[in-house]
Amino acid sequence: MSFLSISRRTRKTYFSEKVIASGVKAFTVYNRMLLPTVFKSVEEDCRHLKSAVQVWDVSVQRQVEIVGPDANKLVSIITPRSLQNLSSSKCMYIPMVNSRGGMINDPVLIKLSNDRYWVSISDSDVLLWIDGLAQGLGFNVEVFEPDVSTLAVQGPKALTLMERVFGSEITKLSFFGLGYYTFNNTKLLISKSGYSKQGGYEICVTGKQTGIMLWDALFEAGLDLNVRAGGPNLIERVESGLLSYGNDMTSDNTPFECGLGKYLPRVIDELCIGASILNKEDIKQPKQIIRSIAIDASNLPQCTEPWPLLFNKKSVGQITSASYSPDFNTTVAIGMVKMDFSEANTELFLEINEKPYLAMVKDRSFN
Amino acid sequence: MSFLSISRRTRKTYFSEKVIASGVKAFTVYNRMLLPTVFKSVEEDCRHLKSAVQVWDVSVQRQVEIVGPDANKLVSIITPRSLQNLSSSKCMYIPMVNSRGGMINDPVLIKLSNDRYWVSISDSDVLLWIDGLAQGLGFNVEVFEPDVSTLAVQGPKALTLMERVFGSEITKLSFFGLGYYTFNNTKLLISKSGYSKQGGYEICVTGKQTGIMLWDALFEAGLDLNVRAGGPNLIERVESGLLSYGNDMTSDNTPFECGLGKYLPRVIDELCIGASILNKEDIKQPKQIIRSIAIDASNLPQCTEPWPLLFNKKSVGQITSASYSPDFNTTVAIGMVKMDFSEANTELFLEINEKPYLAMVKDRSFN
Repeated sequence: MSFLSISRRTRKTYFSEKVIASGVKAFTVYNRMLLPTVFKSVEEDCRHLKSAVQVWDVSVQRQVEIVGPDANKLVSIITPRSLQNLSSSKCMYIPMVNSRGGMINDPVLIKLSNDRYWVSISDSDVLLWIDGLAQGLGFNVEVFEPDVSTLAVQGPKALTLMERVFGSEITKLSFFGLGYYTFNNTKLLISKSGYSKQGGYEICVTGKQTGIMLWDALFEAGLDLNVRAGGPNLIERVESGLLSYGNDMTSDNTPFECGLGKYLPRVIDELCIGASILNKEDIKQPKQIIRSIAIDASNLPQCTEPWPLLFNKKSVGQITSASYSPDFNTTVAIGMVKMDFSEANTELFLEINEKPYLAMVKDRSFN
Repeated sequence: MSFLSISRRTRKTYFSEKVIASGVKAFTVYNRMLLPTVFKSVEEDCRHLKSAVQVWDVSVQRQVEIVGPDANKLVSIITPRSLQNLSSSKCMYIPMVNSRGGMINDPVLIKLSNDRYWVSISDSDVLLWIDGLAQGLGFNVEVFEPDVSTLAVQGPKALTLMERVFGSEITKLSFFGLGYYTFNNTKLLISKSGYSKQGGYEICVTGKQTGIMLWDALFEAGLDLNVRAGGPNLIERVESGLLSYGNDMTSDNTPFECGLGKYLPRVIDELCIGASILNKEDIKQPKQIIRSIAIDASNLPQCTEPWPLLFNKKSVGQITSASYSPDFNTTVAIGMVKMDFSEANTELFLEINEKPYLAMVKDRSFN
């Protein structure tokens, strides 16, 4: 493994010092900002995430704020998803595509008011995309990165911990539900969401002082719950089939290839970027699709580049994320496979360092 | 120091395996891609860069290709610099700003033909910005990332090495000059440029096979020149006053604050993004400006966040990049200081871990 050179450009978060004090071993850089990836070990972090509760510094989920008279109009064209049911009490997952129908991000949209939105982004500079569109269209909006840093509280004991810090009202939030809750006389926006399937919440914090006080409060209240610092865990997120933009999908892929067609209306409003492409029948019926895959191996190297998937020595897809899972006693993976080879239980192969491995297509994620 | 978690998202380059085989110790992530930063040590790498020749994998300088009938029109508005003197035989440094006049990148523009350009970018997703503008404006262009990876050959012996591999014609290139030169029956675009002041060239390569053959040819031809793998060197680039987008300037800064006003016309064409702001007299006379700074210290921690610069205990600026320089026997730095404190030899202070240090404003860079 190599070291990471850290500079102002690979931005620290409000919580980086806390994360370092908690014994972080590795970071990645996400939206030009530090994201902790490993504390004790990926395996031990996973085991703990599944049994206790973790506080994650996911400040890298930067927000793009869109505010102004034309905000509503702008938001409605940046995603092919219909925003008809968007409300201020629920977040919405909105695939974003370019004019060729290729994924450029898969953010979560938060409606703060009728003329003010946050786009909570995965790893690409959506701010520049949205601002470029706004400038080109001459829309009357401001587009900027607000002072918002997100702490995620994840794990089976997340609800207990959140209730202790924010009171019992928080337990009424439904999945992807959104509301304001008081901490230390400050109203914080909280959603029942997060990048794991272990249950949990995401808390939006403004200002370092509030952030640090919240961090400390969560650790104090969670002492007997064995609360620890954590981060998105490779094993758990692959087991859970949670897609990672840049890993499992890129701008080469349509939402249909990513299995996100279910979020899109039968006919996408033609004002939406990419609609003319995504409304084509042959695009709606993609030639390849993302699947969970079980690889019969326990000791593969890290998947840092796509691994070709083979059938009869012919390439039929690629693995894009993989990690050995102690719980499933197999290497869990996510990959893109040609439609003809995407049915559950299809047996494919991959070759790594000249050794062949069996790769079985699954009908759903592991978790 | 922490480890870096590498995945498909933090893209490997065509040369990453070569870089790893050359003993790289640390990477950073730049444009969501691996950039080698340290081989032996920052100090030893610097000494070698200044005395021999290095081959740098700077594939992270991604190109944004703009091609089509409206390419010319689009390129002319994405920078406040006048493109009147742009030709296919010279690259041009073009500060790019948003509608508020804030820097969003400081790329190099390459004119391939009248309707085809490459924007060779520093660390922000300029592709999304330009594509967003193009979509919003309804321009008839394609905007995409072409298959181009750049190798830089840097150091006092770069010319000798390049002449051996590309022939004597290469020696006629002037600074920022651009031309096609043959390697292995393939024409490669080469510029006399690079992110050091030790002299050198940048070679644009298409395809991994050509890239690896070129890498090997450079190392074979440079054996007696003591050629080594390297990368942009923190000490050398700060000594040389070479700005780093994301470190020394961000979207909070105008080109004038960054000392880039010299590249802009007296009156910027009002069609250019940001012109209405940048043409204001009070913006042209900035309240703060980037300066080289000598800090009287030899053992400071890494500068991973701005360090406040003080005068009479009042904040008058900040250090944004710093490293101890063995050659100058001081900590060389780059920072932003208020105009009233920007004159050469102004003595400022900074406090690090409760210890005060003298910081002297310089009239020019160290190298």
